[in-house]
Amino acid sequence: MNTIAVITKEELLKYWLGHRNLTKRVIEKFPEDKLFTFSLANMRTFGEMANELIAIAVPGLTGIVNQTVEAYGEKNSYNTKVEILAIWDQHTEELKQLWAQLQEEDFHKTFNLFGQYEFPIIDNILYFIDNEIHHRGQGYVYLRALGIEPPFFWER
Amino acid sequence: MNTIAVITKEELLKYWLGHRNLTKRVIEKFPEDKLFTFSLANMRTFGEMANELIAIAVPGLTGIVNQTVEAYGEKNSYNTKVEILAIWDQHTEELKQLWAQLQEEDFHKTFNLFGQYEFPIIDNILYFIDNEIHHRGQGYVYLRALGIEPPFFWER
Repeated sequence: MNTIAVITKEELLKYWLGHRNLTKRVIEKFPEDKLFTFSLANMRTFGEMANELIAIAVPGLTGIVNQTVEAYGEKNSYNTKVEILAIWDQHTEELKQLWAQLQEEDFHKTFNLFGQYEFPIIDNILYFIDNEIHHRGQGYVYLRALGIEPPFFWER
Repeated sequence: MNTIAVITKEELLKYWLGHRNLTKRVIEKFPEDKLFTFSLANMRTFGEMANELIAIAVPGLTGIVNQTVEAYGEKNSYNTKVEILAIWDQHTEELKQLWAQLQEEDFHKTFNLFGQYEFPIIDNILYFIDNEIHHRGQGYVYLRALGIEPPFFWER
């Protein structure tokens, strides 16, 4: 699959980091209490969704890079906004280091993510990103319902 | 930028088409009237969001492929579910034909999308996709609020 890249490995990282930056700003917009208490339509709070995103991205990428299959689990649940933001930043740094250990040729190898999702690594990574965008879009509705203006979607 | 692809042009198309298929199923889940009347938090209806997505993807890609700069506009507003679903399918076919006219080396050329967004074509295309995921996530909240089970997010 030697070809002219439609997107390079470094560009895909930049794209993901741009989304992580936007998601961080969405978390920041929530008042502390509302992050863990407010929801619509009997859905999870945005704090719970953030815990899911935290449990997927870096744990998933760690498994991919180290070739270690571990079950999905929200082992550490973060219950304050300050903790969530701290782990978010820490994971962003870890993500960059993990990314540097991936080679272009790895992206088409399959990996049994969380012992459940046996797909090419590129598919797993795109899922990490689109699942984040999906839930963050829901966070936008929560913010609007709270009368809070969300960040501009196109600012990464 | 000759390298081993982290994602090929054909895989990126498949990824986009998977998202379009899911969005179509979300539109289908809305009762006809609710598609154009229901919203939360004073946001747009999902019908209005779908019109935005329709006005971006294929018109944007047409400009990119033909190198014609046209202003963004929701020239044709579709006001029934049946019209939206028909244009969605039609645009999916057009999208595949437009995609076939793009070469790998085009993705890093810049294009002044809608005469406003002068970015590499790959950035514009990723924006088309993530904007769709973002609004569809909001549609999920609407469906839940209407007591309707949305499609599984991971089924493309």
